[in-house]
Amino acid sequence: ELAVFEKMPDGPKIDESVLERDGFTSEHPYFHCFVAETSPEDGGDAIVPDNGEETSDLGACGGSTSGAGDSNGSPLLGFALYYYIYSTWKGKSLYLEDLYVTPSCRGQGLGSALFNRVTKRAIESDCNRLDFSVLNWNPAQEFYKAKGAKDITEEEGWHHYRLEREAMEKLAFGLNKADVTNE
Amino acid sequence: ELAVFEKMPDGPKIDESVLERDGFTSEHPYFHCFVAETSPEDGGDAIVPDNGEETSDLGACGGSTSGAGDSNGSPLLGFALYYYIYSTWKGKSLYLEDLYVTPSCRGQGLGSALFNRVTKRAIESDCNRLDFSVLNWNPAQEFYKAKGAKDITEEEGWHHYRLEREAMEKLAFGLNKADVTNE
Repeated sequence: ELAVFEKMPDGPKIDESVLERDGFTSEHPYFHCFVAETSPEDGGDAIVPDNGEETSDLGACGGSTSGAGDSNGSPLLGFALYYYIYSTWKGKSLYLEDLYVTPSCRGQGLGSALFNRVTKRAIESDCNRLDFSVLNWNPAQEFYKAKGAKDITEEEGWHHYRLEREAMEKLAFGLNKADVTNE
Repeated sequence: ELAVFEKMPDGPKIDESVLERDGFTSEHPYFHCFVAETSPEDGGDAIVPDNGEETSDLGACGGSTSGAGDSNGSPLLGFALYYYIYSTWKGKSLYLEDLYVTPSCRGQGLGSALFNRVTKRAIESDCNRLDFSVLNWNPAQEFYKAKGAKDITEEEGWHHYRLEREAMEKLAFGLNKADVTNE
């Protein structure tokens, strides 16, 4: 759903088994998540759980009290996926990779609750920054600005660069031609 | 030196003790490094060491065969600092936070050797992307493009957003007003 929203439906190249391995089976997961889900104890109201310690009760999703969740019948209504990064200027920082709320549940404060929960985790983890990327046509930019976020591409001129696998291999193997001949 | 080059000399707010703690004393460091340094065994030529396994011999730094290193007499000539990030589309990825070569040693291929070494590490670590940020006035953009990197701010419209500590605290404590009153 998120890839379709971002107009790149063919973007995702990994499936749930890879996500499970990298985020849930290792002692040191590559990413962490908060999820928004329907609450079975609360008439199907949407909640953002926090390791069982607290919940943000957000009322019924999509105006229904049956708490149907998304169109696949899953109790998942949205998620925030993050990991730790490092700034040589500010130290430990947190990066919000994805923030998503399923279309039928938007406008109920779920995205806001997830985002706020991530900022709280950042502070709990002694992080001095929360960074993320937004497409320049995404209306969510206003949401993030209202939260106090700065567009540092606009304000400071930072551009995001990327090497894909093919370009990486060219450089990596170019450095050690012997490795290539030996393989 | 890097902060001065980036026209933000007051940027760095942490010192070497924090870098040492976060990168070198923990079992799971928040970042990793490659360094370029003068080689004592090689008449002071510049090398990019790789955990003792291999080196890229790059000739004398700054045209001198005495290998004086930087102006502080340190054998360090440059560094590449990186960490692991995660893409829900492509899985494990590597982020190059800083790539720096001291001014007197530029133009000798040190930056290129460090960058190539980082791409090799990315492949060794099964990463499918190497991401980094470049200021839009930095001439190094041409260097990165020649390496095969894409400016995805330009090509796809990704803008980098940031919440600083003050904005984070506002949101985090707003979520749980009780926490604030109790402290």
